[in-house]
Amino acid sequence: MSTIFTAPATQETTQQYQHIRARTESICQPLEPEDTVVQPIIDVSPPKWHMAHTSWFFETFLLQPHLPGYKLFHKQYSYLFNSYYNSVGSRVQRDQRSTLTRPPLRDIYAYRQHVDEHMQRLFKQLDEEKLAELLPVLQLGLQHEQQHQELLITDIKYILSTNPLLPVYKPQQQQPGNYQATKATFLEIPGGTYTIGFQGEGFSFDNELGVHEVLLEDFRIMNRLVTNGEYLEFMQDGGYRDFRHWLDEGFALVNTQNLEAPLYWVKQEDAWHRFTMHGLEKVNLNDPVCHLSFYEADAYANWAGKRLLTEFEWEAASQVYQPTGGNFVESGLLEPTAADPAAEGLQQLFGNVWEWTYSAYHPYPGFTKAPGAIGEYNGKFMLNQMVLRGGSCATSESHIRTTYRNFFHPDKRWQYNGIRLAQK
Amino acid sequence: MSTIFTAPATQETTQQYQHIRARTESICQPLEPEDTVVQPIIDVSPPKWHMAHTSWFFETFLLQPHLPGYKLFHKQYSYLFNSYYNSVGSRVQRDQRSTLTRPPLRDIYAYRQHVDEHMQRLFKQLDEEKLAELLPVLQLGLQHEQQHQELLITDIKYILSTNPLLPVYKPQQQQPGNYQATKATFLEIPGGTYTIGFQGEGFSFDNELGVHEVLLEDFRIMNRLVTNGEYLEFMQDGGYRDFRHWLDEGFALVNTQNLEAPLYWVKQEDAWHRFTMHGLEKVNLNDPVCHLSFYEADAYANWAGKRLLTEFEWEAASQVYQPTGGNFVESGLLEPTAADPAAEGLQQLFGNVWEWTYSAYHPYPGFTKAPGAIGEYNGKFMLNQMVLRGGSCATSESHIRTTYRNFFHPDKRWQYNGIRLAQK
Amino acid sequence: MSTIFTAPATQETTQQYQHIRARTESICQPLEPEDTVVQPIIDVSPPKWHMAHTSWFFETFLLQPHLPGYKLFHKQYSYLFNSYYNSVGSRVQRDQRSTLTRPPLRDIYAYRQHVDEHMQRLFKQLDEEKLAELLPVLQLGLQHEQQHQELLITDIKYILSTNPLLPVYKPQQQQPGNYQATKATFLEIPGGTYTIGFQGEGFSFDNELGVHEVLLEDFRIMNRLVTNGEYLEFMQDGGYRDFRHWLDEGFALVNTQNLEAPLYWVKQEDAWHRFTMHGLEKVNLNDPVCHLSFYEADAYANWAGKRLLTEFEWEAASQVYQPTGGNFVESGLLEPTAADPAAEGLQQLFGNVWEWTYSAYHPYPGFTKAPGAIGEYNGKFMLNQMVLRGGSCATSESHIRTTYRNFFHPDKRWQYNGIRLAQK
Amino acid sequence: MSTIFTAPATQETTQQYQHIRARTESICQPLEPEDTVVQPIIDVSPPKWHMAHTSWFFETFLLQPHLPGYKLFHKQYSYLFNSYYNSVGSRVQRDQRSTLTRPPLRDIYAYRQHVDEHMQRLFKQLDEEKLAELLPVLQLGLQHEQQHQELLITDIKYILSTNPLLPVYKPQQQQPGNYQATKATFLEIPGGTYTIGFQGEGFSFDNELGVHEVLLEDFRIMNRLVTNGEYLEFMQDGGYRDFRHWLDEGFALVNTQNLEAPLYWVKQEDAWHRFTMHGLEKVNLNDPVCHLSFYEADAYANWAGKRLLTEFEWEAASQVYQPTGGNFVESGLLEPTAADPAAEGLQQLFGNVWEWTYSAYHPYPGFTKAPGAIGEYNGKFMLNQMVLRGGSCATSESHIRTTYRNFFHPDKRWQYNGIRLAQK
Repeated sequence: MSTIFTAPATQETTQQYQHIRARTESICQPLEPEDTVVQPIIDVSPPKWHMAHTSWFFETFLLQPHLPGYKLFHKQYSYLFNSYYNSVGSRVQRDQRSTLTRPPLRDIYAYRQHVDEHMQRLFKQLDEEKLAELLPVLQLGLQHEQQHQELLITDIKYILSTNPLLPVYKPQQQQPGNYQATKATFLEIPGGTYTIGFQGEGFSFDNELGVHEVLLEDFRIMNRLVTNGEYLEFMQDGGYRDFRHWLDEGFALVNTQNLEAPLYWVKQEDAWHRFTMHGLEKVNLNDPVCHLSFYEADAYANWAGKRLLTEFEWEAASQVYQPTGGNFVESGLLEPTAADPAAEGLQQLFGNVWEWTYSAYHPYPGFTKAPGAIGEYNGKFMLNQMVLRGGSCATSESHIRTTYRNFFHPDKRWQYNGIRLAQK
Repeated sequence: MSTIFTAPATQETTQQYQHIRARTESICQPLEPEDTVVQPIIDVSPPKWHMAHTSWFFETFLLQPHLPGYKLFHKQYSYLFNSYYNSVGSRVQRDQRSTLTRPPLRDIYAYRQHVDEHMQRLFKQLDEEKLAELLPVLQLGLQHEQQHQELLITDIKYILSTNPLLPVYKPQQQQPGNYQATKATFLEIPGGTYTIGFQGEGFSFDNELGVHEVLLEDFRIMNRLVTNGEYLEFMQDGGYRDFRHWLDEGFALVNTQNLEAPLYWVKQEDAWHRFTMHGLEKVNLNDPVCHLSFYEADAYANWAGKRLLTEFEWEAASQVYQPTGGNFVESGLLEPTAADPAAEGLQQLFGNVWEWTYSAYHPYPGFTKAPGAIGEYNGKFMLNQMVLRGGSCATSESHIRTTYRNFFHPDKRWQYNGIRLAQK
Repeated sequence: MSTIFTAPATQETTQQYQHIRARTESICQPLEPEDTVVQPIIDVSPPKWHMAHTSWFFETFLLQPHLPGYKLFHKQYSYLFNSYYNSVGSRVQRDQRSTLTRPPLRDIYAYRQHVDEHMQRLFKQLDEEKLAELLPVLQLGLQHEQQHQELLITDIKYILSTNPLLPVYKPQQQQPGNYQATKATFLEIPGGTYTIGFQGEGFSFDNELGVHEVLLEDFRIMNRLVTNGEYLEFMQDGGYRDFRHWLDEGFALVNTQNLEAPLYWVKQEDAWHRFTMHGLEKVNLNDPVCHLSFYEADAYANWAGKRLLTEFEWEAASQVYQPTGGNFVESGLLEPTAADPAAEGLQQLFGNVWEWTYSAYHPYPGFTKAPGAIGEYNGKFMLNQMVLRGGSCATSESHIRTTYRNFFHPDKRWQYNGIRLAQK
Repeated sequence: MSTIFTAPATQETTQQYQHIRARTESICQPLEPEDTVVQPIIDVSPPKWHMAHTSWFFETFLLQPHLPGYKLFHKQYSYLFNSYYNSVGSRVQRDQRSTLTRPPLRDIYAYRQHVDEHMQRLFKQLDEEKLAELLPVLQLGLQHEQQHQELLITDIKYILSTNPLLPVYKPQQQQPGNYQATKATFLEIPGGTYTIGFQGEGFSFDNELGVHEVLLEDFRIMNRLVTNGEYLEFMQDGGYRDFRHWLDEGFALVNTQNLEAPLYWVKQEDAWHRFTMHGLEKVNLNDPVCHLSFYEADAYANWAGKRLLTEFEWEAASQVYQPTGGNFVESGLLEPTAADPAAEGLQQLFGNVWEWTYSAYHPYPGFTKAPGAIGEYNGKFMLNQMVLRGGSCATSESHIRTTYRNFFHPDKRWQYNGIRLAQK
């Protein structure tokens, strides 16, 4: 992966490191120590674990091999906080993370501080050449921390949602505007050959490499995300009970789990509400619908007589329209917001919600894993998962790219996942 | 789907019907009534059920709507023998098929005879125009029966394999020749635009439609299938214990199920044997390796420093080389056989074993489901499954095509599935 | 166990053997071969397996050790048809019995015939002394076969009940009389010291030995079994929904399995029906209620303001009243029948349904296991099961005794189990 | 239950309340907030939950109905902290207790303080008569809190044991003496009629009532508990691999869970160690063996050619020998300790470890549940559990009695459960 980084050695790196690390702690600031231990479903890791694991990454891949005389903060932490790197050795099994009531949260903060201080020492020791050598792993560590920041937000939301007290993570700062609905239109994207994959300077993950051309037919893309109001029509039309809209495995899931609405929706006094980071609130019809499985996204598209995009179509559309901006984690809203009725062109392509595509998460042509532990980062997950594009209201703006490939199993609902439609 | 059939009304149809229906019964002829009831795993249906379900298809979609005055053989059979057609109504759940000890096998034979006799009556009543109208469904029914014939063979093999007596389905008729190994080479396929999907006359499934062009880069394809001997090297090199070769979910499966060899392989007195349709026999090193999951196929490819093909590469290679023939069910061997060392070009592309591709089973561009129950045939399964190409020693030669897309979940091993490699 | 048998060597033994063995085949006579293979729940064994296993018992414990020159019918049958005797070696796991589609039923009949012929030879060779030596095991083998006859009936009933066609095992031979209800009264049994356990001549199981005295307080016992009509009142009073009547584990079961009636009861057009050996029929209010778990029996008793008996109270009552006769398997009815309103005293103590007692199946004082495999017959099951007394309409009259202890886990419903009440 | 309490109204009650409540907090004092949230297995409740639930008991059954003007601390706490009282309403399901990260620990302390303050007010308002009326429930609340104190200790031990850091709950205060082994002898207890059940003044649970006489035969009881050294002999003799010693369900458990030693035992450098409340330490051979299932206790007894006692024999022996004292929670050791070699008679009958008896936890004759919610305390659990007697090193001395019946399912190992043998 060393060929993909070109950044010169600057103070910027140090600042970027400090900035990103500080955000993790800021995300956890509203939590009680008790919130940081539990794992209500296997997908959701204890916040304490996220905080430690991201530090373990820097300790394992930078401090230990490259800072002379570095001493481990604790000799068992590698066992405790390795996630899935077989190359690094044995570890606490994923479904056992809630057994780690110790080390307590304050020790994890001390661990973070220890790692940060030694990273500063490492930065000071690096000459230009050495920095260039370490930059790929350093960048990966920072991107990795940003990914865990998004997981922290979605995991915290899930943890709080299981509590009958429905705790508020953070009160809503601004009242949502009294906006109008944005009319749905379909924008034409011409067929032809498009170049897919990352080819710029700066960082990308290995799964974006393998730049290649794809042939696309003409298609049309919805100008904005599907809204709660639109999804509610599907629900009210009996969408969850009509097998014709559903993939077979999706319909089985609907029936065994008695699904009838997106995750976090509850009916109170005949009105649909959603559990949000600001507590329980009434569903706003113009906001993008969120917390859906791929199955639900696909069933909605079928019901609407449309379809989901492929990841290639999505990337092509972003090349054609080159939209920018979006509702990212930096907005502090932590929930998706409605499109601007006054705007034109392709809206909400970035931020708000990840958009499910009908593309399996497979390697691009010529994909190769990096040697060693870093090679376990992405490649070994390239099956049975679907690609999502565009980032969400829990994603850092500096983390997302046109070529960025997120991926989850099609039944997962706890991420900020939503729908954009396509048609011929 | 009506546009894809062009066959004129001829006596051929009647003969084809009789021929295909008779083969089903011939496949079941060596079974005891007791063999035809059980369902040792959910994937495997009782043979009795296959025999009835294929008849139910003709009764439901042809006799009932189109033969005036037709009376159902038994009014509850639609409930008993519907597989997965929600449009047709409720049914015995898939995992409950072994509860159907009644109707006994002889009643199922009577049911088949009843349906066949009335199909003859229907054929006699059809004029040219009506036959043209019914031909799509009729063809689908026959292709459907051929698919169940393959399942019958693989299900019978599984059922017999679970029995400690290791019963012989059919004694081996001919001793395998004392053949030599065929040298593995890699044949070049030029990159460029290839047209994918079915565009000829005659029958195809809806999942082959949506003809479209794909851009491929240059690649090379192995001239024959991977052999037992080659796979054994992988095993002996510790392939099943080295996580680096495996997709994460595959390695988890290896560990939870203690996998160490293909399905049906057992070690006796330090030599590997396989359970076959002819009983237990020593593994022949030159035969194609078989009964592998996608995970095993992919891990082998990684170990060998190669990769699997995509379904598009496979189809392109078949267009370039246009190979014909193969070891199909008509050979009566019911197990894969070694390649001919004297042959040149692309060998074993058809027959012997289905070849796992690294392509998810998704809709082609423009795919649409047929209206009504027939629309449930393929479309609703287009997720989480991988495409296999080329047919096996349990496939009818008349059933397979260059564009034929078979599909199974990546963990399935009881089909005759094997490996062909590709490289840049 | 040798001390408990006193029977002299007579021709009677041979006749008894023939008589009991023939009954097993007579029970299986109405079955299709397909019926004899399946195992819809782990409790229910395939009828074919019962037929083979009972033969294996004689072959293993009598023919092999005691008939000179005896050759096994098939060397793998011991592996196939051993039930749970660790001392005898490895075996097909209990939940895998439906994998045994081979040997087919006709081979099992041949096996039975082979064993029977050689048992005749053994009988002919036995002198008085040798017969006395073998009698305990021979008697155990016959009692064992009688136990499996009862299981055959209950297992066949379960197998047929899972089939949507609701097959009839045997048409009802006689119409049930137009009988009147029998009034429930409670008969006084005086407290005091009672001797519990088997002390007569003839056969008993080891679990009845360990004769000992128990002190009982005065109590009263219901003169007949609880009827369908009485149980229906409990149902109609919301009995299945009111936690106050239930043991905690029982109420959990009611809720996870959505129980609302005895096993085999179905509501059709607002009337309760039961699946019986004669097909589906309307519930007869005066018949004893049947196919209940211990939890249901106990909940009913609580609702009625009464309680179940202990096994000691039951045995004491049988000593006080010494009732005889009952609706056993010999009646051919195969379903419980109503008490005779004209009769007096303690009715229906034997036959009709096994009566759940509130006694755990534990060893009597001084209980010791026999040495060797025979010692595995009873002792290792003495936990977590409840004692039932009195035999049922599927029990042989010659098999039951006042001291006989049947036992099942408290959730089991597929045996002919019912209720008799007690009160202070 | 009101008839069983005779204590006069005194200041003693208030002091007893304060003393017992304070001990709960003292037990939790060494914990981190993070330790108090998790539920690693369903048997183990979060310490925070125990602290709240015991307070809920006083709030629900005393403050709410009897303190005029009492306001609930929090209106949802009844939903959060009800354990299993259906009469009181719906509640968080038992396996969901770890979802309660909120209220945080400090709120639970506030809740306890709130309840304690109002209990003081209630005490002040009570006249003699009212106190006599409330005493049964008050006493039950205190006994209930003592039971949860024992559970707190065993649950904390389990929670810490699952942590790879093996945290120390409390350093060992005193080095265990260099004591000698105590010789095992068997003391004779004469047969005859013994009166079983609670008949004194003061508190007992309803399950001890129903005083009745039982007839016992002569038997002999081991003078002390079985030691680690003796149990190790069983292990080294292959005890865990020899089916002949085991109940069938126990041996199945051994095999599915790969059991080979008591819970908390680990082998390090060829020596057996145990996880204790003081951390990991070498197994002391003279200490009583502990953390065994009933199955292990019974298998050990069989291997030793002995048996377990019944609960009646245990109670009879305690009447004959009337031993006093023991290693209770008040010793602060929190682990069992060796018998005194100098002592004579029946040793260690109280304290150290609960002794598994071969008696099912069933109602005594004439048992009746109290009306209302209190009636759910014991009665609904009287099935499938085995009685344990004598208390442990985690039991309060003031909590135990000769007639006290503890009960657990036979597979449970996380309590301080051990073995005493009997023989004819």
